[in-house]
Amino acid sequence: MIIILKHGADPAAVESLRRDLHAQGLEVHESVGRSRHLLGLVGDTTSVSESWLLSNPVVDSLRRISDPYQKASRASHSEDSVIRIGSTHFGGGHFGVIAGPCSVESARQIESVARSVQHSGAGMLRGGAFKPRTSPYAFQGMGAEGLELLRHARQKTGMPIVSEIMSTEHLSLFEDVDLVQIGARNMQNFELLKAVGRLGKPVLLKRGLSATLEELVMSAEYILAEGNEQVILCERGIRTFEPSTRNTLDLGAIPMLKRMTHLPVVVDPSHATGISWMVKPMAQAAVAAGADGLMVEVHNDPTAALCDGPQSLTPAEFEDLMAALKPQIEFFGKILN
Amino acid sequence: MIIILKHGADPAAVESLRRDLHAQGLEVHESVGRSRHLLGLVGDTTSVSESWLLSNPVVDSLRRISDPYQKASRASHSEDSVIRIGSTHFGGGHFGVIAGPCSVESARQIESVARSVQHSGAGMLRGGAFKPRTSPYAFQGMGAEGLELLRHARQKTGMPIVSEIMSTEHLSLFEDVDLVQIGARNMQNFELLKAVGRLGKPVLLKRGLSATLEELVMSAEYILAEGNEQVILCERGIRTFEPSTRNTLDLGAIPMLKRMTHLPVVVDPSHATGISWMVKPMAQAAVAAGADGLMVEVHNDPTAALCDGPQSLTPAEFEDLMAALKPQIEFFGKILN
Amino acid sequence: MIIILKHGADPAAVESLRRDLHAQGLEVHESVGRSRHLLGLVGDTTSVSESWLLSNPVVDSLRRISDPYQKASRASHSEDSVIRIGSTHFGGGHFGVIAGPCSVESARQIESVARSVQHSGAGMLRGGAFKPRTSPYAFQGMGAEGLELLRHARQKTGMPIVSEIMSTEHLSLFEDVDLVQIGARNMQNFELLKAVGRLGKPVLLKRGLSATLEELVMSAEYILAEGNEQVILCERGIRTFEPSTRNTLDLGAIPMLKRMTHLPVVVDPSHATGISWMVKPMAQAAVAAGADGLMVEVHNDPTAALCDGPQSLTPAEFEDLMAALKPQIEFFGKILN
Amino acid sequence: MIIILKHGADPAAVESLRRDLHAQGLEVHESVGRSRHLLGLVGDTTSVSESWLLSNPVVDSLRRISDPYQKASRASHSEDSVIRIGSTHFGGGHFGVIAGPCSVESARQIESVARSVQHSGAGMLRGGAFKPRTSPYAFQGMGAEGLELLRHARQKTGMPIVSEIMSTEHLSLFEDVDLVQIGARNMQNFELLKAVGRLGKPVLLKRGLSATLEELVMSAEYILAEGNEQVILCERGIRTFEPSTRNTLDLGAIPMLKRMTHLPVVVDPSHATGISWMVKPMAQAAVAAGADGLMVEVHNDPTAALCDGPQSLTPAEFEDLMAALKPQIEFFGKILN
Repeated sequence: MIIILKHGADPAAVESLRRDLHAQGLEVHESVGRSRHLLGLVGDTTSVSESWLLSNPVVDSLRRISDPYQKASRASHSEDSVIRIGSTHFGGGHFGVIAGPCSVESARQIESVARSVQHSGAGMLRGGAFKPRTSPYAFQGMGAEGLELLRHARQKTGMPIVSEIMSTEHLSLFEDVDLVQIGARNMQNFELLKAVGRLGKPVLLKRGLSATLEELVMSAEYILAEGNEQVILCERGIRTFEPSTRNTLDLGAIPMLKRMTHLPVVVDPSHATGISWMVKPMAQAAVAAGADGLMVEVHNDPTAALCDGPQSLTPAEFEDLMAALKPQIEFFGKILN
Repeated sequence: MIIILKHGADPAAVESLRRDLHAQGLEVHESVGRSRHLLGLVGDTTSVSESWLLSNPVVDSLRRISDPYQKASRASHSEDSVIRIGSTHFGGGHFGVIAGPCSVESARQIESVARSVQHSGAGMLRGGAFKPRTSPYAFQGMGAEGLELLRHARQKTGMPIVSEIMSTEHLSLFEDVDLVQIGARNMQNFELLKAVGRLGKPVLLKRGLSATLEELVMSAEYILAEGNEQVILCERGIRTFEPSTRNTLDLGAIPMLKRMTHLPVVVDPSHATGISWMVKPMAQAAVAAGADGLMVEVHNDPTAALCDGPQSLTPAEFEDLMAALKPQIEFFGKILN
Repeated sequence: MIIILKHGADPAAVESLRRDLHAQGLEVHESVGRSRHLLGLVGDTTSVSESWLLSNPVVDSLRRISDPYQKASRASHSEDSVIRIGSTHFGGGHFGVIAGPCSVESARQIESVARSVQHSGAGMLRGGAFKPRTSPYAFQGMGAEGLELLRHARQKTGMPIVSEIMSTEHLSLFEDVDLVQIGARNMQNFELLKAVGRLGKPVLLKRGLSATLEELVMSAEYILAEGNEQVILCERGIRTFEPSTRNTLDLGAIPMLKRMTHLPVVVDPSHATGISWMVKPMAQAAVAAGADGLMVEVHNDPTAALCDGPQSLTPAEFEDLMAALKPQIEFFGKILN
Repeated sequence: MIIILKHGADPAAVESLRRDLHAQGLEVHESVGRSRHLLGLVGDTTSVSESWLLSNPVVDSLRRISDPYQKASRASHSEDSVIRIGSTHFGGGHFGVIAGPCSVESARQIESVARSVQHSGAGMLRGGAFKPRTSPYAFQGMGAEGLELLRHARQKTGMPIVSEIMSTEHLSLFEDVDLVQIGARNMQNFELLKAVGRLGKPVLLKRGLSATLEELVMSAEYILAEGNEQVILCERGIRTFEPSTRNTLDLGAIPMLKRMTHLPVVVDPSHATGISWMVKPMAQAAVAAGADGLMVEVHNDPTAALCDGPQSLTPAEFEDLMAALKPQIEFFGKILN
């Protein structure tokens, strides 16, 4: 870490800062020029508080040399991590496809969707049981019963399942879920991140609506720091001023995240656009940008869906999407699922 | 609610939609023009799913006539709500001031800050015990011990206390906290909102980093819907592209929220700007814009603060702020605390 | 257009509004329900002022049924427009590639870059002569001399040229430029838009840093309204809170713009990301999302470039990019240039 | 300027960079630590190209020590600049109020508004003659005739006038306008900035819809660099994701701009909010935040206004606003006009 001192900083105060830093076990190298004055720190600066430094009246600004996310960093782990869930793999040349309805609504609905998306080539089944909804009066999901129906669909089809957890109180219900999703609104629910870190199961971590990529990776670091290295990152659109789509899909996140970290990156074009006819071009763009997988909403009857119908594909539209994606995934040198 | 149908919508599909709506207990009034075709719904449309309607192929768009937040709406409760916590009041002409450190760090620190901010005119004491931090390696707060020190400072000074809750698992620890804060990152942690709704204590709800005002009020509605009407809304800055401040303080939120709802609105200029010398002008602007209170970070020694030092006022700076605010609050016809 | 009236609107004021609208040559259809009151307008509403309507005290809100951009609208022109510049085509299944340096710096530089990008497969040569720079002290481009060098490079290679115009005062200098670029900062320089509309040459119109897609199309409409239908739209990234890239490339703009309008859409991955190693994955994603072309910065010696070196490809990197794109363009069923 | 070199930078390449910098007349101080390697530059670095440095493969990042806007910087001119236009002053303890309609519509309208706002206490009259409109089909202003009507209203009332210039082609028409406005959409129309810099008249420069504060000051620097030091900055709201207001008024811009520069800062609450009832609280907040003036839209008949009626005050509302502001301006120790 480099500390840039203010012009004309009081020497006694600088000396006092040097001593404080030294007391934290760091080597301090000073560099004085006509228009600048720096302190370079050598040692483990992970625990040095930036705000403590910035509030010191002689400090102008700081610059970290190494990433603040050590376990997630590509620097610490140069190979792609591959997350394996049943026969579906994410990362390291594998492209995993997750599909299913926004919400589990009935045994018939989830089983019907499961069979059709499996037939079209999806490797995993998604389905919301606990739904984060802006309004307290909107359908909140079937809860534990929804998870039970998901497990039942898994038993019938053999597809591993993914569902979103919204509270540490529900942890025991998710012990048998193959991939535990942390939704965008909970990306910085740090207590929940620590808890799923201790759960020891693969986690799908969605980017918050206005989270920076570094914040997303820092949230992944919360999970990794608990010893759980099976984290898949998910870009699902960010909030901008553009009104024609629900969110703005940031596909630059894919190459940037893959340079920052060794974790797989998947894209959710359904939530990113909010519009079913945009799912296909955005899914294709995600493949081309280097994504390691997709999560797509599919509903057997979107016009009757209890949530997010306008962005759900019909089984026929998903079949059409997969027919387009299969040769494209191959074209880009990856293996489906 | 008005449903705007697509040009050339299939009459049979429209008739089917009419029947579905009628089956939900609604009156449906049709209006057909040369360039538009509408269905107007009469009855309780709160539970009608917008996404269900929007995914119907004949529906172009929707327009709600009444607010989706019924209990928080000014339409349902025209008088200002006044939240009384000890001798500090928020709303209805009362201006409450909350001050204290970002984090509780020691008995001596919190008691020292409490005495000085009380002397300067603050009505309530804030102090973080559980801290939401971007990095898992940053100081996470003193936890239960921090709450214990806050309670001790309350006993010494008589000031009611406010602290942030981060998980439903900590609910029992907050039973004796006078005002329970939901932080920006948890504004849409819906399980936590429901839980504090059932706690029956005053809640300070901060706006999320990229939440719209309607989403903030909908999150308040989650608390009110559980029967807890003591909610104070807090504007604390939103995320924009402007890099010179930590966030962008949206003071237009004050008059807009006060028109939308009957709940008091307070402003946190410390987190909004992230810069201690900006706290005073922004606090003054908040008073002028009609805020019902302020929450300000004060630390006895900002350069040694374990978090957010750069935005903390010293006790002397807070004294100076209050000296400026007292006549200004009076000038604008409000009563301090 | 539908006018939604306020609840309890004064009947006399509504009657007065009806008369005003009728006087503008419109048919007015009234529809009154228990919870809503509407006026539907039939006729040419293009010239009806929305702000005039919205400031009427009985008006709640408005809804336009038809697009406000009539000439650019896909509704008015269902076929893709194809813009032909020399042997390079944009739209209708053709994918045009424009490449060259941010700025023209010398005869040797522009000719060298021109030859190498032509060899790699680019169809057109770009080069800035007048440069919009945030700082008045930064290199402002070679001006008229730069255009002269571009023309010279065209003569040597046969490649048509594109360059940015910044002022109506420079119009005469651009009469011999094959594709006139309007930069992001001038997207709403309406006097310049009208002037290039009258110039009768193909125009490349870049999206403003925080322009909505509708605003971009409305700016295109300024050009089309002057009788010039040869407009290519360019997505070049929007400003968001994400700091790791210069801008955020909004690839959803491609399918959305192509649904809104019949005009070709190209992508500039160089300005969008600001990082040379991100150009290739983003260019590939743009092809997959349905773009009609690309504009890429290439410099013979990026470390010596007078502007935007960090985002410029070397000729070798551009060769590598085109080697990847050629089969991909074919895979997606399009024809290069 | 400090150049932070990449870890393990090739010594020969660093030496080559040192020589290049030395050749530009700069002293170069090297500082090598275990985890960092820096070059500190001493001398005039204003003309050193950041992008040239950043594209050098051994350079990691840069940090400027001094402001890139030398003439506008508070560091170069510690006293507030006071801009005097007739008897209205901006800055240095003076608070100037500009009022008038969005557009000049008729002699009767502008004269009527001028008399009423003058009576209420405005010091200057605004009125748009050339109007930047998103749609080519919307009212574009009365042009030269509008300026003539403004001048006539000035003659009748003695109020100095302000109007927006949209093109360098109209410069001669503005020679007799007291304060020339550059609108938000033209904030980076650099040719226009240079031209008004040479005009030698006071300029009101509005912040672009998504411009950073540094960009705004750099645009002011374009004007100052031409020798014109009479620049007033105007905050008029930025574009965010919040839909309830037209823009988001960034009042933190006031103290931040006043710290960065010596130029006066005024606020336009009409365009910032787009809602007439929000003008008063936001104007009051602007005074409290330290603004040097206001620009407010007033129309004699907002419901008949040809543009921006919903945000215009009636003369009676403006009278009420000024009645509230006068004691407040005095309370904050400033002098009206």
